[in-house]
Order: sequence, then structure tokens, then C-alpha cells
Amino acid sequence: MTNYDQFVSRAASQMRESAIRQTGTVLAQARDMVSFAPGYPAEDQFPWPELAEISKALLSGSDGSVLQYGPTRGFRPLREATIELMRARGIESQLEQVVISTGSQQGLDLVARVLLDPGDVALMELPSYTGAISAFRNVGATLVGVRQHDDGIDLADLDETLTRVRGEGRHVKMLYVVPNFQNPTGLLVALEKRTQLLEWAERRDVLIVEDDPYRDLYFPDVSTEADTRPIAADDRHGRVIYLSSFSKTLAPGFRVAWVSAPPALATRMEFAKQAEDLCTGGFDQRVVYEAYRSGLLARHIPVLRAHYQCKRDAMTRAIERHMASRVSWIPPRGGFFLWAALRGGLHSRELMPFAQARGVIFVEGSAFFVDGTGAEFMRLSFSAPSEARIEEGVMRLAAAITDAVERVPAAPQAQ
Amino acid sequence: MTNYDQFVSRAASQMRESAIRQTGTVLAQARDMVSFAPGYPAEDQFPWPELAEISKALLSGSDGSVLQYGPTRGFRPLREATIELMRARGIESQLEQVVISTGSQQGLDLVARVLLDPGDVALMELPSYTGAISAFRNVGATLVGVRQHDDGIDLADLDETLTRVRGEGRHVKMLYVVPNFQNPTGLLVALEKRTQLLEWAERRDVLIVEDDPYRDLYFPDVSTEADTRPIAADDRHGRVIYLSSFSKTLAPGFRVAWVSAPPALATRMEFAKQAEDLCTGGFDQRVVYEAYRSGLLARHIPVLRAHYQCKRDAMTRAIERHMASRVSWIPPRGGFFLWAALRGGLHSRELMPFAQARGVIFVEGSAFFVDGTGAEFMRLSFSAPSEARIEEGVMRLAAAITDAVERVPAAPQAQ
Repeated sequence: MTNYDQFVSRAASQMRESAIRQTGTVLAQARDMVSFAPGYPAEDQFPWPELAEISKALLSGSDGSVLQYGPTRGFRPLREATIELMRARGIESQLEQVVISTGSQQGLDLVARVLLDPGDVALMELPSYTGAISAFRNVGATLVGVRQHDDGIDLADLDETLTRVRGEGRHVKMLYVVPNFQNPTGLLVALEKRTQLLEWAERRDVLIVEDDPYRDLYFPDVSTEADTRPIAADDRHGRVIYLSSFSKTLAPGFRVAWVSAPPALATRMEFAKQAEDLCTGGFDQRVVYEAYRSGLLARHIPVLRAHYQCKRDAMTRAIERHMASRVSWIPPRGGFFLWAALRGGLHSRELMPFAQARGVIFVEGSAFFVDGTGAEFMRLSFSAPSEARIEEGVMRLAAAITDAVERVPAAPQAQ
Repeated sequence: MTNYDQFVSRAASQMRESAIRQTGTVLAQARDMVSFAPGYPAEDQFPWPELAEISKALLSGSDGSVLQYGPTRGFRPLREATIELMRARGIESQLEQVVISTGSQQGLDLVARVLLDPGDVALMELPSYTGAISAFRNVGATLVGVRQHDDGIDLADLDETLTRVRGEGRHVKMLYVVPNFQNPTGLLVALEKRTQLLEWAERRDVLIVEDDPYRDLYFPDVSTEADTRPIAADDRHGRVIYLSSFSKTLAPGFRVAWVSAPPALATRMEFAKQAEDLCTGGFDQRVVYEAYRSGLLARHIPVLRAHYQCKRDAMTRAIERHMASRVSWIPPRGGFFLWAALRGGLHSRELMPFAQARGVIFVEGSAFFVDGTGAEFMRLSFSAPSEARIEEGVMRLAAAITDAVERVPAAPQAQ
């Protein structure tokens, strides 16, 4: 037989399956499992009848280009729409800055390919989004973590880390942040801290990669649109690469997101994308554009806010009822995720087999930490299951914690 | 202002816009242009009413997963369908070998990322497909060309090239070939040569990357299905990575293609794809699957063969009528392309401005040669324009050649 080891690139030999996708596989194998694992939007909230109407019109055949290859940067009216969407968020962007990407994951991959050489450093929040971790690691970058508080990244630790890493002769290209309802913690970075991060990036000559998929999904009972003002809104010197997506507000099955970058970098991203998939799906882009143009998207988003806020309530109620003494957790102010820390030294990896046996899964916190810590955390997604299933899942999780505490030898408290 | 040069990766600093996409931009700027440039399928041949029916059923909302995130390897029934399609081509593939890709361009990019380190060598036909050239170059690979005859690659040159390149201490990972109606030449590799290539790859321990998007589009007047038997059909030792696509037979606006690779490599491709776009569009995959399952695809392909054969006829007739003395050319036996060589020392790059002034564009042959040669060639795509536009375009091209010959100083014959 052929020996493939000799053929595999160094980059590919380092690639690993993401923990989130792994738990997705577990889910697929067990029908009755309550899944708090992948951050899937609620399928019953997709605007099915409206999308069917839009699709019917698009597939009439009157515009052949709907199913043709298209420009690598994307369908121009959709690019213009993203500029209007960004303007509503306070960001001034130009057409030459926008590249439509095949989901935000491709945007992260384009960022990685355009900015990062093997050994270059990307600074990451502790914890941070696994999709970004994978994309940056896959090009051989070194990821260095920075501590995070409830209001966002620790600025002193950020500055010290930069000094230390530069002192080692490494090239620090960027800081990756998710300021709005972060995946995995759900945290909302304070506005003052956003300004400070931008000032820091200017002073220290580092780029900021701002990933903003959850911005529209703030929960009106505890946050406002003003709380979500992106860092990019105050960027006057082309310091920020901004990513956002239609996957959470319309549907992820259309792989449509966008990047807004300084023109010199957007051009490189276009070249990288040409060789990566030529263009994002033409039909998908048209559907998303029509959803925007017709006002469907604007009408739909407040419905989603209310929907996910109710699910957040269901999860926090269930946690308070069934396992308040077992975990500490951050009340989510928007987005899809509740971030919980197990008390008493139990690790989420130890808990996982007990949870699966009880019929519930989540993502282990350590998957989100580039420094190998985070063993006590769990990411619980409340976006996809119904309120009844959320209640059921938290009950199962509480029972699993009891199982685990009884059966796992006590772990040392400090680690 | 921020200086971005310091932030751009070495890989990205080498990336260039593809010649084909560049000419696409020209096309977009001039409405009356006859375009023989991009290899676009004919939009009026997309099965619009059937696709509209399929979409309507899919968007009923009865299956929420249609618009959800999906498995990175793709929608399982579609992966099974590709196995059946490959079986009909003589290829035995297993589920664990198949990865659905976001167009074949992503398949090529995954091949590049999984196999090629900077400095590794990919052997390429002279000429070869620009999309593959871009994908392999973007990971820093060195592309080495091998001469091609009318029946395919020159085996002696192939073996000598391998010996020479290995003698330089380089790692030759693969040979990239498009045996069926190659982009750009339209050539059909002889069956005997396919067997010889496979034997050579075994003996010399090199992988073959077989790109097969045009296989279904043979022209019944001059070729048969048997002529298109893939190299992968005789692969007994996992030597071949096989790529094919639904872009030419259904529509490229759905970005759906597939790769079949030895399991060890398919797994790496899955990991690479996870970080690249998570998954191919769920809706697109369902549409393609339904087109397969319902028999639409099987009914549609013979219609396309007849359609493109008529357009081939229109182009060859027009060339014989208007510029037979100006060019030599290969009669296409399938696919989208006619490959023509300018006589008398004229370079296609010199011709291009005259052609644009006359209202016709093509792709310069040199774009397809990794060794810097090919200046006398043009790739003329006959797939998208109507027969009347093909006639008009060839007339314009003939006039442009006359313009160019009169105005360009005679080039040296040998170069």
C-alpha cells in the first residue's frame, strides 16, 4: 500500500478535528440527545415561507446570472448592502474594502492566509472561538492567550504579553476579538474598553480582527444596540478587520458572510479567495440580498432577539433550579451561549461521559483556551433546543454532575 | 496611515489575480463584448423550472436541517450519490473517501493544503488549468511543467523531469492532470496513456491528482463515454485523488463538487475544510442531491452534450470561414474550450487590445503555462455565447488579428 505520511504537508500533519464538530458527530449518532454543543440557530425560526417566495422569484430564469459563476468579491448589490448594514452599526466602509465570504469561517481563513506566516503570533482572548483557533493554527501561526475579565480583555496583561512575545523576536500580527456576546462566554465587552483596545492597537502597531456575528442578537432586557458598537466604528486609520455574517440572523445553510478590511488587505483576500472557491454561491448571495432588500431581515431580527432571550431565560431558570450549587456562570446579555464553570474541581472532560450517558452534550471549555487551561468550563448553547428540551437537558446535566462527583476521584483544587 | 506590508504573509505577498478572473472584469465593464474568456456554462440550459420545483419542496420547512450547518464532509445522501456516479465511471470509492467541496476549486485548494509544503513540487501539464496553478502556488509550491502531445502528457519528458527535479533534492508530491477535455486545450488523453500514467505513478511513487469536471460533456459525434474512463478507475493502490463537479452539468451557482481520496488524505482534507468554511452550503447540496435522485441530472446531461456540440460546430465553422489561415487549432471532442495557436509569430497578449477594441475577449495562452511559454496560444470558450454570438465573435477576432498583424512589429519566429 501507498505510504501517505511522506505526502502530507507539515501544515496538514498538524491539523486536528475541532472539538465542536466532534461533539456534532456524537449528536448525529444519538437521536434523543439534548445538545447544548454546537451553536446552531433555531431551525423553526428560519423565515421559511418568505425564503421560499424569494427563491421562486430568483429561479424563474429571468436572470441567468443567479446560477452562474460570479465575481470573487461577491454580488455587488449585496456588498453595497453590507456597507449599509455596517453604517447602521457606526462603521464607515467602502466598496473596495468588502469581500463576501463563504460563511465567516472563510473570512477567518482568509485573514489567516493573508496575515499569518508560520511562527507569526496572533493574540487571542482566553477563551476564544475555536473556528478562529483552527484557521490560524492551520497556517502554522502561534496563538498566545490574553486574560479576559467580565468587561473584556485585561489590558495590562495584553500589553505585557505583547512586550514579552516581541522580546522573543516574534512578529505579532494581530489581536483577535469577539466583543459582542463572545463565543464561548457570551461576554459583552465594555464600550470604554473597546476604545482602549483601538488606542492600544494604534500605539503598539498591531491589527485588530473583530469578529461580530452575534451583534444583532442582543437581549433587550439587559442590553441595547448602543452597547454593541463595534471597535471598527471608531477606526480612523485602517487598524481593524471587521467580520460579520448572515448565518445567525437568516440561516447558516446559505453560506454568506462578509469581511471589511483596509483596501490593501481586501485585495489580498480576494486573491486568496479566488484560489479557495472562486466565489461564494450565487444563489445564496441573491437570497440573502433579497432578504435584505425586501425588509425581511430587518423585520426578522427583533423576532429572533425575543426568541433567543426566552431560551436564555429557560436555561438560566433551569440552572438555578437544578444545579445552582454545582456551577457558577455568566448571565448572557445576547447571543447563543452560556458559559459555566464547574465547582469543586470537577473537569468538564471528566463530566462528558456521564453527561452523554444521561443524554446531554456540551462543548468542553478547554477547547477554547489556547494555553491549555479552562478544564473547569463548559459552553452550553441554548439557541437550538426548545425551552422544554433546555429544561430537560439541564436536569440531565445536573444528574450527570452528581454521577461524576460520586465516581471521579476529587481533583486538586488548584491546577 | 498604517503600513500593511509588514502585516502581509509571505504566501499572500506572492498571490496574484488569475488571468481568467481579470478578463471577467473586462467583460463586466463592456456590455456588447463577445466573451470567449471565462468557461461559463450556458445559462439558458440550466434546468430552471425543475430547480424551482426542487427548491420549493426543500424550503417548505418540513426538514429544518436544509438551512442548518451540516457535516464538514457533506450531506451524506449526496456523498453516497457521488459514489454511485463514480461507479458508473468505473471508479470504486467508499464513503470514507468522499468529501463534498465548495466547488472543485475548493477541492484543489484542499489538495494543495494537505499535500504541498512551500518548495514541494507539483508536476503540471503544459498547459494546465489556471485554478489549479493558483491553488498550488498559494501554498508556496513549485510548479514544474511537462510537455503534452495530442494524446496527453509526454511520458519520456515526465520521467526525465521527475529525475531532474528529484536530483535537485526536491520533494515531488504529485502530478496534476485533466484527462477529459482539458481546460484549456480540450484534449482527451488516450486510454493507453492513462494506464501508463498510473503505472508510472506507482513505479515512481508520486500521487496523481485527476481533475474531471468535463467528463460527462463528450461530443457524441467524435467521442464516446468509454473514451473518458478516468485514471482512478484502474487505481488499485490508492494512488489517485479524483475530483469532479456538478458545476458544468447542473449549475456553478450551487457551489457543489466532490473529492475522492485515499481515506488517510480524505480525513486531512476534512480537517482543512473545517477551518476553511465549516461545510458546503446545505441548501445547495440538497438541490444537487434532489436533481440526482429525481433523475433530472441523468436526463439533462445528454441535452447538454448536444447543446455544446452545436456550439463547438458554430465555433469551428466560424474559424474555418473567417480565420483559418491565421490560426491552427485542435478540434474539441468535448468540454467548453477551443485551443488555438496564432500563426506568424503574433502573441495573444499583443492581440488582446485589438480584440477588445473590436469587442471580443479570450484568455491569453501564457496564463496556462507554468514555464512562461505559450505566448502564441488563445483559449476560446464556446460554452456560454449563442451560436450567433460565436459567429460574430470569431469575425471580430479575425478582424482584430488583421489589425494586430498590420500594427505590431513582426515578432521573431523562434522565441
